[in-house]
Amino acid sequence: MRTRLTEAFGIKHPVLCAPMALITGGRLAAAVSDAGGLGVVGGGYAGTLGGEPDLQQELVHVQGRKFGVGFITWALERAPHLLDQVLAHSPDCVFLSFGDARQFAPQIRRGGAKLICQVQSLSHVDQAIEAGADVIVAQGTEAGGHGARRSTMPFVPEVADYLARKSPATLLLAAGGIADGRGLAAALMLGADGVVVGTRFWASAEALTPTLVTDRAQHFTGDDTVRTTAIDALRGVPWPDEFSFRFINNKLASEWAHREAEAKAEFGSLAVAYADARSRQDFDVVAVVAGECIGLIHDRPNAATILDAMVKQAQALLDRGSRLDFTDGAA
Amino acid sequence: MRTRLTEAFGIKHPVLCAPMALITGGRLAAAVSDAGGLGVVGGGYAGTLGGEPDLQQELVHVQGRKFGVGFITWALERAPHLLDQVLAHSPDCVFLSFGDARQFAPQIRRGGAKLICQVQSLSHVDQAIEAGADVIVAQGTEAGGHGARRSTMPFVPEVADYLARKSPATLLLAAGGIADGRGLAAALMLGADGVVVGTRFWASAEALTPTLVTDRAQHFTGDDTVRTTAIDALRGVPWPDEFSFRFINNKLASEWAHREAEAKAEFGSLAVAYADARSRQDFDVVAVVAGECIGLIHDRPNAATILDAMVKQAQALLDRGSRLDFTDGAA
Repeated sequence: MRTRLTEAFGIKHPVLCAPMALITGGRLAAAVSDAGGLGVVGGGYAGTLGGEPDLQQELVHVQGRKFGVGFITWALERAPHLLDQVLAHSPDCVFLSFGDARQFAPQIRRGGAKLICQVQSLSHVDQAIEAGADVIVAQGTEAGGHGARRSTMPFVPEVADYLARKSPATLLLAAGGIADGRGLAAALMLGADGVVVGTRFWASAEALTPTLVTDRAQHFTGDDTVRTTAIDALRGVPWPDEFSFRFINNKLASEWAHREAEAKAEFGSLAVAYADARSRQDFDVVAVVAGECIGLIHDRPNAATILDAMVKQAQALLDRGSRLDFTDGAA
Repeated sequence: MRTRLTEAFGIKHPVLCAPMALITGGRLAAAVSDAGGLGVVGGGYAGTLGGEPDLQQELVHVQGRKFGVGFITWALERAPHLLDQVLAHSPDCVFLSFGDARQFAPQIRRGGAKLICQVQSLSHVDQAIEAGADVIVAQGTEAGGHGARRSTMPFVPEVADYLARKSPATLLLAAGGIADGRGLAAALMLGADGVVVGTRFWASAEALTPTLVTDRAQHFTGDDTVRTTAIDALRGVPWPDEFSFRFINNKLASEWAHREAEAKAEFGSLAVAYADARSRQDFDVVAVVAGECIGLIHDRPNAATILDAMVKQAQALLDRGSRLDFTDGAA
């Protein structure tokens, strides 16, 4: 399966592993790259959150492979020295999301890495183009973790049309709600050059996700996730207003998810309680991060198995689609 | 393009026109059916809202054609006599959304019509199966008008998997975010037997949509819509809590969209002001209903042109997809 993405990065499959904070360590990124995709290590909050894995240590695992590193842009602003440390490892790309990438773009280019900018609304695209993004990721609201309000299905073609007019050489990836070959094939039909996969790799053998968590999550459906700004406010993580957090609904979220304004007024009031709950692994309080496609995930295989199955299923669907005959029932 | 849907209904294209309240009159439904899809007249609130078009008159336009009629289920409960009146016209299907279809299913079956149940969460599917639905529509949150919180991209395959286990003979359609051939092709890849298209037909020549409204809407992007329960509460339309309303953001919504609990406590407080604003065509107050794919829509052609372009684009994409080579850039 060849796309502009596979050509640009010299990879076999048009699939990136999302740089999930605290989840996509070097082992997962390496496994995805070894299997023919591109693994992007989660640089997350750039060490400013506390409790994050040591990025330098994680990068040891991807040595000698193609790989990328991703950051939460507004957090990287607080620890900008980290970018040079990362560029010293010669990543193939730096993946920035949630903020203005323009300030970091020249440094990334000088470091020889491609710039990937993830956007959550059409209004973000101009800034990404100005930054000189090689790749723009259109992330839908169904994604796990942080994101915003647009949905993948209409958002991807709208960004594709916009890029066709304004910056046709910029590649486009789809993120949010993609967990198998159906999602990959659908994203290609929508106009994407490839996909970014989070939750499916979150439940892979090589992810840093605690087993306790993925064991619990296998019984959930996509109905069980919630997106809200309230929990970040209560735990005192200073996310910009436009970005919200999707995770598996729990006791704390049932109480607060729809009271975003109130939670904002009580910024940080549960910071200590939340940290304490984390140490006790109290999932009535602590958010288990997952996207809506958690309902498509019922196991924790290794990343190569996931990627192989995804690509084979997409190929079979695309092959069948060309016959324009779906009368034996859908996939 | 043949699918289980085209076979079951004896139609040429796997595309239904959504039964949009106050929008999908008989002329639009007839035009979609004449063009090879299936037009579903919007029975909406079953005459209980006020200001709705006369359903009997609308049904004159679909005489001699394949057609369906759709209702808001909880509203039909308040005017159940309407169902017999509709069945007397021998519709090919009755399309029920937002409520428990089981109470109406035997009557619909006796009337010789197929039952289509639209669902907004996985938790609704069992009820639809129990009702004996011939077709289930998985409606994503990106849809215009009323809906809920699941997104089309991960929701459709999850419902497909569920039906494969529980009721494999039930057909599945995708709704929400589908405005062109990219959306149609993507939906087929996700496991749907066809699609339900609302907003794209809302901006068709034959729709009941006022020209004033579609003229305004052509400048909006998908970023400009909002989903909230607040406006229904303020205008005093008794929607069940789980269903919210997507429309183009305006002055009233900017003020209220994120204050759903407050709006609920003031149920009906703006009913008079809202009706007055409607008579003045004051769009700072009155919601212009549209889905996120409004950003893909820039004209108001007739329904046949829309359907023809949609199917041709999907066929071209599927044909190209089978070559597994997208290196000349995406769609």
